[in-house]
Amino acid sequence: MTSYTNIRGGIGVDLWITEYQTADLGLSCRIKETLFSGKSEFQDIAVVDSHEFGRMLVLDGVFQTSVFDEYIYHEMIAHVPLCTHPEPKKVLVIGGGDGGTVREVVKHRSVNSVKMVEIDGLVVDVSKKFLPEISIALRENHPKLDLTIGDGIQHMHDAESEYDVIIVDCSDPIGPGEGLFTYQFYKDVYKALKPDGLFVQQTESPFYHQSLIKRLYKDISALFPITQVYLASIPLYPGGLHCFTMGSKKYRPQDEPVQEIPDGMKYFNPAVYQACLNLPEFIQKILVSNS
Amino acid sequence: MTSYTNIRGGIGVDLWITEYQTADLGLSCRIKETLFSGKSEFQDIAVVDSHEFGRMLVLDGVFQTSVFDEYIYHEMIAHVPLCTHPEPKKVLVIGGGDGGTVREVVKHRSVNSVKMVEIDGLVVDVSKKFLPEISIALRENHPKLDLTIGDGIQHMHDAESEYDVIIVDCSDPIGPGEGLFTYQFYKDVYKALKPDGLFVQQTESPFYHQSLIKRLYKDISALFPITQVYLASIPLYPGGLHCFTMGSKKYRPQDEPVQEIPDGMKYFNPAVYQACLNLPEFIQKILVSNS
Repeated sequence: MTSYTNIRGGIGVDLWITEYQTADLGLSCRIKETLFSGKSEFQDIAVVDSHEFGRMLVLDGVFQTSVFDEYIYHEMIAHVPLCTHPEPKKVLVIGGGDGGTVREVVKHRSVNSVKMVEIDGLVVDVSKKFLPEISIALRENHPKLDLTIGDGIQHMHDAESEYDVIIVDCSDPIGPGEGLFTYQFYKDVYKALKPDGLFVQQTESPFYHQSLIKRLYKDISALFPITQVYLASIPLYPGGLHCFTMGSKKYRPQDEPVQEIPDGMKYFNPAVYQACLNLPEFIQKILVSNS
Repeated sequence: MTSYTNIRGGIGVDLWITEYQTADLGLSCRIKETLFSGKSEFQDIAVVDSHEFGRMLVLDGVFQTSVFDEYIYHEMIAHVPLCTHPEPKKVLVIGGGDGGTVREVVKHRSVNSVKMVEIDGLVVDVSKKFLPEISIALRENHPKLDLTIGDGIQHMHDAESEYDVIIVDCSDPIGPGEGLFTYQFYKDVYKALKPDGLFVQQTESPFYHQSLIKRLYKDISALFPITQVYLASIPLYPGGLHCFTMGSKKYRPQDEPVQEIPDGMKYFNPAVYQACLNLPEFIQKILVSNS
């Protein structure tokens, strides 16, 4: 939930937006103005320009991405799986309507094609207009990119042995993202991957969503021989620490040498690739506990 | 700066405390009640009981530590240096009035004595009363511990070749902690260490205090042959990512095998010991840039 005032900032106007990350915890950003506020078939969409985070995309009141720190999330959801697979050619991105993930994916030389399936066309349109740095691959119709506005769950259900890498760049497991956090979906992901394929999904905060992380880890482990949680520090998200879960049919991130890393990384590098897999004690315990 | 209401919570009272982490960014916690609010010779001191973080110590309006996540800061400021030194016997802690750091330090079997010099006796008294889990070593007058209420800067100035490990567990570089972030202080730290000694200091957020981190890294590098920044994810602090800087005369954290790690760690483990040294690209760039 978010509270904000849809007033264009002016002299003497002190405008703040607050995301209630939990019922008892709020992150507030002073903003210059609300650039967009609307409602799609699926969700409330807003773009605000904040002093600390720059422009921010807000969906159903939840801060999704910001110009200040988006590189962390997008580099980590894209380059960790793409450096784990020795030669990712065909990639599928589910969600990721702001375009940041596909912007990173197309940087890999081995990648020939990226199919992106985003359910909400208005998120794409708004991102193209108000978040030009993030949505650059969408704006420029990158030649590797094939964008479909449609249902990722249905697309996954229909695909078979098609992709080297699948990236599930979804919002929270409430609203349109809900069906992407189910065992049935992971069964379809497994089927949609080639025999040596792997996938990654954003899986929320290890401080505030422990039961979700535990359930997903169990579901994914039941299907994939290799399951790996990894971490990234993202100031915009609850607790500042975010986790991703990888299911892989063959390749283990620890075992693979780092592939050629594209230029211009701001967070990801070979040291981070190793470090992000090394989990603090309390996270290891969440994953192995039986309760 | 913090805004809060000094009312004991009751039915219908919605009480929040907000730390303005920067002028444009606020972290707000819903609280049950304010347990203590007072003023020492050095600073404003408060303890609030929050829903999300449990009891929190607040100094001059800045969230210092919470029962929810204090283990991360205290394990990381204590065990990284103590596992880097092959046999730390004599340890000095500057600051750390809540007692969490010395609670961790005394767990190491090789440590014979811990001198703690805290400038503000009221922080110690308040922590002993309201933060019993954190201040346990202070409350029980742990036999390894020698607590002095006094000026850490003066103590450092007077000490010579005395300590194996020094831990500077200070508050922000504004107010009583200011003199602990200076080149002169690090010269004294160098002098106070044995010929193979090392020290660690908390050095704020890599997202929001980059010029400070850069200056300290330069100052410490000018004195110590080995300087190492390392990271920990701490939800209570700005951006959720916190950095520590180590200056060492002889031992490199990467080179040393992990010493016996005390039982009961919730964050630190051998994997984290390695991972915390691997810095994201933007932090590496802060440290090496000449600007």
